Amino acid sequence: MEIVYKPIGKILTSLKEKTHAPIQGVLAPESRGSIEVFPEFAEGLKDIEGFSHLILIYHFHKSGDYTLLKKPFLDKTERGIFSIRHYSRPNPIGISVVRFLSVNDNILEIAEVDILDGTPLLDIKPYMPKFDIRNDARDGWLKDNEINKQIRGS
Amino acid sequence: MEIVYKPIGKILTSLKEKTHAPIQGVLAPESRGSIEVFPEFAEGLKDIEGFSHLILIYHFHKSGDYTLLKKPFLDKTERGIFSIRHYSRPNPIGISVVRFLSVNDNILEIAEVDILDGTPLLDIKPYMPKFDIRNDARDGWLKDNEINKQIRGS
Repeated sequence: MEIVYKPIGKILTSLKEKTHAPIQGVLAPESRGSIEVFPEFAEGLKDIEGFSHLILIYHFHKSGDYTLLKKPFLDKTERGIFSIRHYSRPNPIGISVVRFLSVNDNILEIAEVDILDGTPLLDIKPYMPKFDIRNDARDGWLKDNEINKQIRGS
Repeated sequence: MEIVYKPIGKILTSLKEKTHAPIQGVLAPESRGSIEVFPEFAEGLKDIEGFSHLILIYHFHKSGDYTLLKKPFLDKTERGIFSIRHYSRPNPIGISVVRFLSVNDNILEIAEVDILDGTPLLDIKPYMPKFDIRNDARDGWLKDNEINKQIRGS
């Protein structure tokens, strides 16, 4: 079974290489970008201005081959690819929660961006606190001290 | 540009029809399901057992044609499709945060499920509180009273 999607737009950022991208957008609050939604889909942006954050779903277009075991950026041990957020996935789909700044016709300005320049955008969904926040959630292998190092280093 | 994905597994639930599905999993805490990850991808599940919640990315296989304006389930006004979570999207990709109960080889048991039986699974990502929770996030058109009605009615 094959599933075929077409981009609804593209994501424009200053991140030109994979090595430049922050590990997650929340670790790079100053990182800005734009979204160009292709004009034929712009009507779908109606009412988006009320949300403070958006979930972007996109294609990791420079992911290369996938692997089922991979060292995550925040750890030294190989983990299963479905236990980490690395891009080397069987279906290289990325999701990012970004801060939404403004919209002008089919162009959206965003912050807290960890996405490479030119990334094909597949979908935009509103981040809805009632549905997306799980305050009782527990991390697995990820250790606080590794994240804190990143935050201090950023 | 066409982007081609292949399912890594399928989602098995008691929800046989779209009209049976809860609006979001968090509104149906008792709703259970299973994930069958196809055996060739099972190695990618290593280390997943430490997480309490997973993000499932899947194909809305019964979505039908898309529309750019749609009334959401929780409102009476037409909204842009990128401002709501409805399945009638240009790329019918669904995301759900589910509670992760257990894993046995390539089978995962989950709860808080809002996904139709037989849904093709594209990816699993760990829900990571440090990256996925935005406690300062603000809802747009969604009104608390509509959600509260759903919670009381469930």
